[in-house]
Amino acid sequence: MGIETPFVAVDGIVMLYDRNEAFKGIVLIERKNPPLGIALPGGFVDIGESCESALVREMKEEISLDVEIIRLLGVYSDPKRDPRFHTVSAVYICKAYGEPKAADDAKKCFVYPPDEIPMEKLVFDHAKIIKDFMATRYQST
Amino acid sequence: MGIETPFVAVDGIVMLYDRNEAFKGIVLIERKNPPLGIALPGGFVDIGESCESALVREMKEEISLDVEIIRLLGVYSDPKRDPRFHTVSAVYICKAYGEPKAADDAKKCFVYPPDEIPMEKLVFDHAKIIKDFMATRYQST
Repeated sequence: MGIETPFVAVDGIVMLYDRNEAFKGIVLIERKNPPLGIALPGGFVDIGESCESALVREMKEEISLDVEIIRLLGVYSDPKRDPRFHTVSAVYICKAYGEPKAADDAKKCFVYPPDEIPMEKLVFDHAKIIKDFMATRYQST
Repeated sequence: MGIETPFVAVDGIVMLYDRNEAFKGIVLIERKNPPLGIALPGGFVDIGESCESALVREMKEEISLDVEIIRLLGVYSDPKRDPRFHTVSAVYICKAYGEPKAADDAKKCFVYPPDEIPMEKLVFDHAKIIKDFMATRYQST
């Protein structure tokens, strides 16, 4: 067919709550593979699965949490956002309970209150994504 | 690299206005290529361009309009939404002035007031997309 487009990925802003519905923070990972650094959990969408299914699967694989998608935050598609190749990411805000455990592409998991996130250590355009989330968070989630 | 993901496309809900800022309707096209039928204008994202750039380019190519993007409506990624292969589409609401002229993959252009759109003739999941647009239109555009 000759069609070539960027890769499609999904990333999750996972808002972690305790059983009393108290907000604990956002789940971030330390990446096992280059580019090394701190990132939102996420991964590529498989052919044959929706972005929402890919998001739920990737969150289970990387941080061992069952997430509920709240809403789409945005689509991030700057050709330079991923240093490896051109990736378009659909970013979803979601909610989860429990303890994240790193697995698959994640070496470690962290839970950061939004204002304590080490923005300078974030890879890709994830600092921008988190800023966008912070700017819209109190409007509609 | 072994990564295979769905194709990435963009579609536009182009709200057409006259010079007095009166809303005329939504621009739809009759497709030149299969699947034949009525559709939102749109197309594939090239490697190296953002979704927003692809949207502006495709609207210029297919309906000969310079559009201003208002906001992202959503990401549509059901594996069955495109009968040809799996395509993930980022759909943007935009605004334009002037007269649409069909070109490239579009055989004809139409401007329909939203409540006169022939929903049964729409291909892909474009009827669902337009319903989603109608449901959110009066909230935030």
